[in-house]
Amino acid sequence: MKVRVESLTVSVDGYVAGPHQSLENPMGVGTSGLHAWAFSTRTFQQKVMGADGGATGVDDEIAARGFTNIGAWILGRNMFGPIRGPWPDDEWRGWWGDNPPYHVPVFVLSHYPREAIEMEGGTTFNFVTGGIREALALAREAASGKDVRIGGGANTIRQFLDEGLIDEMHIAVSPVIIGAGESLFHGINLRELGYSCKKHAGTELATHFFISRDSG
Amino acid sequence: MKVRVESLTVSVDGYVAGPHQSLENPMGVGTSGLHAWAFSTRTFQQKVMGADGGATGVDDEIAARGFTNIGAWILGRNMFGPIRGPWPDDEWRGWWGDNPPYHVPVFVLSHYPREAIEMEGGTTFNFVTGGIREALALAREAASGKDVRIGGGANTIRQFLDEGLIDEMHIAVSPVIIGAGESLFHGINLRELGYSCKKHAGTELATHFFISRDSG
Repeated sequence: MKVRVESLTVSVDGYVAGPHQSLENPMGVGTSGLHAWAFSTRTFQQKVMGADGGATGVDDEIAARGFTNIGAWILGRNMFGPIRGPWPDDEWRGWWGDNPPYHVPVFVLSHYPREAIEMEGGTTFNFVTGGIREALALAREAASGKDVRIGGGANTIRQFLDEGLIDEMHIAVSPVIIGAGESLFHGINLRELGYSCKKHAGTELATHFFISRDSG
Repeated sequence: MKVRVESLTVSVDGYVAGPHQSLENPMGVGTSGLHAWAFSTRTFQQKVMGADGGATGVDDEIAARGFTNIGAWILGRNMFGPIRGPWPDDEWRGWWGDNPPYHVPVFVLSHYPREAIEMEGGTTFNFVTGGIREALALAREAASGKDVRIGGGANTIRQFLDEGLIDEMHIAVSPVIIGAGESLFHGINLRELGYSCKKHAGTELATHFFISRDSG
């Protein structure tokens, strides 16, 4: 059972999201093109957009890995939706419509309790108020032997990295400059935490780096 | 006449040098493999090491660009040598022996004045105490129409970037994790300064990003 980050996309200058995030601009300003490699793939088009088409090839193979052998997901609350503070009601059910692309239990980190939501297609959204270790314990159990994928956002991934809880991390570096926003690496010493880069692969749209812990 | 940064190598986590730099470990700890792409090239072997051999190919073509049409260099003092504070005497003449790989005037930023040093092969080391704009004015004049290359280190490049003085920057991202040290991008908003990534090319050893200003 591994804890994995997949398809986490970073700009050349190290940002996973730009400044001034909003409902209209959930990734913040200056992020145009950041996820071009993912959008281009058949995996993303089919699994996330519910559309036909999309390209096969290296980018697609890498995107597809991210959906293989995943038994549960963990999401930060901002990745689940734009609402901050206490839940005003039960209306918001994620960005993804009635049948979200997860199809397994999803654990959403939140400071505010909420009843679990059962969606179509096998996805349930469970709200965890006890922090990342509680979420991970619940996700491990729900995954019953499969891997747990940490979906994001940056803040959530940084919390897991900080405690050395991530086993494997795939980072795609896109050829864009964002300038400011959420930095993935600043202030986290991945080397001291035992991580190193084991492999990389470049395509027209991104360079993929595969990072994992040397021990444990 | 352009001001260029060439072959500046960054780890996946955004560091150009590790912590604890010393005479024995001039790049700091954890930087093993960072410059593997450059060392591998025929250009580096011939021009910097004075050796035979080295590989041709994309990495080499890119390394060779960095020595093309350069009329003057600017170096930070730490890149010139390990001595800090006032010059104790005139003994230190750079890391590179009697015939350094520059073969043009080099302007070394320092807080402490020193007489210029004429080396073999056309390199002169000139010491500039007035800061980066004075160094750039002198380098431009000395380059007589050719480009000025900012050799580094990180702190010097960041000073030039901060003032938008660099026209073109080639960054190589190596598949290594350094963990801590000198960050190239932290706190500098390259997007606001007008920079964007125009091109990239991946090899077995690095991904090369070509960044330039959109205007000016």
